[in-house]
Amino acid sequence: MDLIKEIHQFLETEIKKMNKSILDSLAVEEELVQVVSTHISSSGGKRIRPILTLLSARMFGCTDDTRIKLAAAVEFIHMATLLHDDVVDGSKMRRFLPSANVIWGNKASILVGDFLFSQSFKFIVSTGSTSAMKVLADASAVIAEGEVSQLARLEERRLISEAEYLKIINAKTAVLFGAACEVGAIIANQSAECCHDLRNFGIEFGNIFQVTDDLLDYFTEVEIAGKNIGDDFAEGKVTLPIIFLAKKLPENQKEDLLKLINAPERSAKDFKWVTDLLANFKIKNEIIDYLQDLKIAANDHLDKIDIENQSKEYLRLLLDFALNRSY
Amino acid sequence: MDLIKEIHQFLETEIKKMNKSILDSLAVEEELVQVVSTHISSSGGKRIRPILTLLSARMFGCTDDTRIKLAAAVEFIHMATLLHDDVVDGSKMRRFLPSANVIWGNKASILVGDFLFSQSFKFIVSTGSTSAMKVLADASAVIAEGEVSQLARLEERRLISEAEYLKIINAKTAVLFGAACEVGAIIANQSAECCHDLRNFGIEFGNIFQVTDDLLDYFTEVEIAGKNIGDDFAEGKVTLPIIFLAKKLPENQKEDLLKLINAPERSAKDFKWVTDLLANFKIKNEIIDYLQDLKIAANDHLDKIDIENQSKEYLRLLLDFALNRSY
Repeated sequence: MDLIKEIHQFLETEIKKMNKSILDSLAVEEELVQVVSTHISSSGGKRIRPILTLLSARMFGCTDDTRIKLAAAVEFIHMATLLHDDVVDGSKMRRFLPSANVIWGNKASILVGDFLFSQSFKFIVSTGSTSAMKVLADASAVIAEGEVSQLARLEERRLISEAEYLKIINAKTAVLFGAACEVGAIIANQSAECCHDLRNFGIEFGNIFQVTDDLLDYFTEVEIAGKNIGDDFAEGKVTLPIIFLAKKLPENQKEDLLKLINAPERSAKDFKWVTDLLANFKIKNEIIDYLQDLKIAANDHLDKIDIENQSKEYLRLLLDFALNRSY
Repeated sequence: MDLIKEIHQFLETEIKKMNKSILDSLAVEEELVQVVSTHISSSGGKRIRPILTLLSARMFGCTDDTRIKLAAAVEFIHMATLLHDDVVDGSKMRRFLPSANVIWGNKASILVGDFLFSQSFKFIVSTGSTSAMKVLADASAVIAEGEVSQLARLEERRLISEAEYLKIINAKTAVLFGAACEVGAIIANQSAECCHDLRNFGIEFGNIFQVTDDLLDYFTEVEIAGKNIGDDFAEGKVTLPIIFLAKKLPENQKEDLLKLINAPERSAKDFKWVTDLLANFKIKNEIIDYLQDLKIAANDHLDKIDIENQSKEYLRLLLDFALNRSY
């Protein structure tokens, strides 16, 4: 059976409750809020982030309903970010559907994104857990700063370094994965050390998730991905494949690549040129090796936690899934 | 002496601390966050909302530093809203300066707005006051839904009713004024009844503030307002002056007005046509009468609180100021 389905079945009660909480809080009077949020909620995908919260809590036997609220809060932060990202990136498609900004316009996406963010805030406050609130408030601030950094680097139209790239993906993606895991441990009343280990596992998980996403933006098919491919390149967004490629290129080709990043637009022909180079220099393999190292680091953090059960096993398997997925 | 200056002097210590807290939390590494947030912070104006929090707390003798954090949180929510509003409204000017979206683009305004919202969240959580958190989380959600409602009504391109208008301004403006006052009472450990009275005072204050704003958008000069005049009309946004005018117009002119609201654009000549009608039907006086009724309601709530001191007097005077201001 498909792993995601299996986990959804394992967490059936929790996920049902969470989905109900999410739907209930979207059932507001204003129809435009309802339609846009429901669209982004249903095109939000596999709900990996709240699953991390639910598995983390369950690993320690936590059955407190607060875990549901935290999982929903994590998903709301994610949904709000998706709506705003699609506006900022000018995206046209998400999970086989036209993106919300295409259907209802940028203005609706901005304001409904704010609404979803405020809902996450309400859910977090309703838990009454000051530590969990602090973790998620801090995560929100880091995510927001990371999104601005990504925009600022993009507007500089230059080849950013691997360190700069890692800093951006840590902020825009990994920190929420880290927080999702950490709050699961917090709500299960685990030690500071344990919460810390789980947070670090989540952070490496998030890094793996984002690097894989950035890889797939060059190496998958639109029919599989359910969204446009080559968007990063078309926008001039420099991600790991380009950073690795640039290191390998002879000076003249590196200059051509820089010119492309600097150009106002990049054509399908330009994309073909760069994907051919990525293939020639075996960049995909290099990134897969890179991901394997991240996976070892992630599992090292998880191994420090002295417990073995199905939830922990699913966290490991989910990591494999994130790494090996083709969409 | 100018009332705002006098109040700023009365609250000098608190406001200095609050401004320092705000500046400290904007001093992040990413320069684009710094410049955009500092711009909106300095063009944010008179800081009326945090002043309401500080006066409310001080009225009850509260000297707890938490009041500073709450005041800063209220101001952060306001600043985040300003950035997103200016993008959604396509505004060009704010308090004598080009608006952030004009200088740094919509994308930066969206993402820095999110950053400011996350900062408000961090400040609120840092207070540790569950009641204050709940009030501000709820307010954020209502504000966000109100912003969407405003957009949805605008896109319907019709003459909304007075009730619809009041609902929108309650959500987008009055609720934050209400919350700003209420958290001041909460942090000063006042009774539920007292917190409630102060909240209601704040809500009427916010209504007065917004109705005055909407009036000034027809009846002031750009040199005084520091922003474009006639923006609401140009956008096709129906506010109280238009709603009152429509009630007075003969059927044929009412149809002309509706056609204008429905048109893709409204010219300076159209604006002149409508302001002439507003003058002919003495709509300004009608709205001033309306505001006087709101003022009585606001003061009734304040009078229920059995205390008399300088802070309470300043709340009353500030209300007069909000009503009589010409900018």
